[in-house]
Amino acid sequence: MTQRVGRFITLEGGEGAGKSTQARLLAERLNASGIETVLTREPGGTPGAEAIRALLLDPPGEGWGARAEALLFAAARADHVARLIRPTIERGGWVICDRFLDSSRAYQGGAGGIDDALVCSLHDAGSEGLLPDLTMVFEVSNNVRSARLAERDGDESDAIGGRDAAYHAAVNRAFLKFAEQEPERFSVIDGNADPDAVHARVWDAVTGLGGAPL
Amino acid sequence: MTQRVGRFITLEGGEGAGKSTQARLLAERLNASGIETVLTREPGGTPGAEAIRALLLDPPGEGWGARAEALLFAAARADHVARLIRPTIERGGWVICDRFLDSSRAYQGGAGGIDDALVCSLHDAGSEGLLPDLTMVFEVSNNVRSARLAERDGDESDAIGGRDAAYHAAVNRAFLKFAEQEPERFSVIDGNADPDAVHARVWDAVTGLGGAPL
Repeated sequence: MTQRVGRFITLEGGEGAGKSTQARLLAERLNASGIETVLTREPGGTPGAEAIRALLLDPPGEGWGARAEALLFAAARADHVARLIRPTIERGGWVICDRFLDSSRAYQGGAGGIDDALVCSLHDAGSEGLLPDLTMVFEVSNNVRSARLAERDGDESDAIGGRDAAYHAAVNRAFLKFAEQEPERFSVIDGNADPDAVHARVWDAVTGLGGAPL
Repeated sequence: MTQRVGRFITLEGGEGAGKSTQARLLAERLNASGIETVLTREPGGTPGAEAIRALLLDPPGEGWGARAEALLFAAARADHVARLIRPTIERGGWVICDRFLDSSRAYQGGAGGIDDALVCSLHDAGSEGLLPDLTMVFEVSNNVRSARLAERDGDESDAIGGRDAAYHAAVNRAFLKFAEQEPERFSVIDGNADPDAVHARVWDAVTGLGGAPL
């Protein structure tokens, strides 16, 4: 593995926390600053990983058990890391990724009953344990979250997003616990504001990373 | 996990070794003896695992890297074990499976460059390390193998079967090494004969298992 020269930033949080909007605003600003920036998401981001995403969100048969689901997420991430993320940061580009390992830890681990060490060991196996330089966790109140989810077009209720409120509360607790355990990698961002105001907080966290001509 | 009361038998070997024919003959004879017997195969055997099989044999994009491939096989096996194999043997049935864990160890491990311990750890993660009661490895000469492959209808050359001769030689060496390392689970069967003669050898190995009204 050659050395990482670009930067790898992930955005995490529950449904309706504003991750995708903030990922887009951040990637646009970095690209406008002259930094080669790739905006991507998980599960997905490469043809192989998108095919696995389709299986995860619309499972054949009786649905995936927690163990098969964790392995499929790790397989999709292995392809995404090998084909897109690692090549980009090795040539000096930046990668902005909407969800990554910590979503597996929070959804399959914290809320899904799979041991956190097991989820991390699958990431070691698939992706040689690649971690982001910065992971932003977006926290929003239940009211803000509900209002945003109600505004969305179409049916966002897939096999994972459609799980119950207790599941999603456990997901949120898990993200905050990870941020406490690893403060040097995580930044918790208050997402209860309009997108431009939240983006200013995101930009503060990113410029704190160093190494970039920002 | 409740106790296993049925039997779990796997058939392993390279392409053209006669596994599928012998699996079918064995399942037919067990069923005719009044034993509930399920004949299945890997990758596949359940709707979820068959969907993963389709991704493995016809990969989207640039093809799977070795790590993603190993995770996908483990995910398919996790579904197969949870949905079909374990329920069958827990209620006293027999499962005859054409390929299982040892194919992953031989193809992704021995011939594919993935560490054997890693392949086994993915099986622990996905399937709680379920092992067969008996694994038969079919050995045939190169001449017999070539003649059988030439007889097959259709195009059998998929993303795995189509790999080169050195790869398939490494696969064979790996199967024989596993059999040496774990003689209590493995039985190496000489497959250089007509199907009925080979079936007689299979039946000898199976009746040695005990616990069955054979």
